[in-house]
Amino acid sequence: MGKGELTRQAILEHAVVLASRVGLDGVTIGRLADDLDLSKSGLFAHFRSKEALQVQTLALAAERFTELVIKPALAVPRGEPRVQALFDRWLDWPKAFPQPGGCIFVAASAELDDQPGPARDLLVRLQEDWLDVIAGAVRIAVAEGDFKKGVDPAQFAFDTYGIMLVTHLSSRLLRDPKAGERARQAFSSLLAAARALPS
Amino acid sequence: MGKGELTRQAILEHAVVLASRVGLDGVTIGRLADDLDLSKSGLFAHFRSKEALQVQTLALAAERFTELVIKPALAVPRGEPRVQALFDRWLDWPKAFPQPGGCIFVAASAELDDQPGPARDLLVRLQEDWLDVIAGAVRIAVAEGDFKKGVDPAQFAFDTYGIMLVTHLSSRLLRDPKAGERARQAFSSLLAAARALPS
Repeated sequence: MGKGELTRQAILEHAVVLASRVGLDGVTIGRLADDLDLSKSGLFAHFRSKEALQVQTLALAAERFTELVIKPALAVPRGEPRVQALFDRWLDWPKAFPQPGGCIFVAASAELDDQPGPARDLLVRLQEDWLDVIAGAVRIAVAEGDFKKGVDPAQFAFDTYGIMLVTHLSSRLLRDPKAGERARQAFSSLLAAARALPS
Repeated sequence: MGKGELTRQAILEHAVVLASRVGLDGVTIGRLADDLDLSKSGLFAHFRSKEALQVQTLALAAERFTELVIKPALAVPRGEPRVQALFDRWLDWPKAFPQPGGCIFVAASAELDDQPGPARDLLVRLQEDWLDVIAGAVRIAVAEGDFKKGVDPAQFAFDTYGIMLVTHLSSRLLRDPKAGERARQAFSSLLAAARALPS
């Protein structure tokens, strides 16, 4: 990786922290220049526009999400353990890659849902890919006999996403110290309902 | 209701629509004056500050939520039917009181979680009250024998909230035509797990 690429990544890592705190709309070339004590013209050379900066911020976060959540979970044995690992890693993600205002994707979802453009398009693709990863692991758990044949992988992914969203709201907005515990309880009930009866 | 109060309510109803679309932060005296062709000074006389305007916008939405969701659901017979009615009314709420950008409370949650102040305080109180209403109806369903004794009302409310949040994301951001269907399926599984076995 060249020095330019290292600089670009360091800038984008700060942009993710900033987006977590103030939203993607607050990630501007001017604000980054101030925060990192860099010249605006240097940042323009890297990113060209606010829109490109936002898209690259999401893309950098997605790369880290793949490294820190998806890859390690996919290394866990197929079946229920892998489904559980996806959930556990996801729950820890705002700490694994520090996002002081909570998950950047959750924050960006509320922000971009009414804003057409490349940032929204990328976010939709990332969310759909992630739902597909969960559904894929569930499909394997059904095939392996860990889960019942009737389990709908897309519905399971939808339900799991709901748990993540309410956990975010509960910890970030309501500051409920029980949020993590409730998240684990909810997911454990979801698993229990999906699990095949011992034959 | 005097003419001043009617005007105030009409302004705030537009503010709710606006907040649903552009976020609470986009609800400003200047923007409302433009949209409604009113004088800024007249609006200042009603609301004094952007902060007061935002608080009153949330408060107006909460009043409508009580009228359109909570009251009719609480008129439904105690037990599982009332719990189901709370969910059904909630699901229809962004249509019952038109919010073109989706539920104002969901939009405001992501926006205000890092912004201390009276709007955030009010939102937290509203969300907690609403979780308490759900938990209360669940507690009654347990007492009536519709739900198992082991059902945790606060956990049930948390799980239900998750379904609402992912439904919002799924319909607003991902534009998944199956969002409503998946929401009903998820809630139906939640009810099935809570339901007492026939004795």
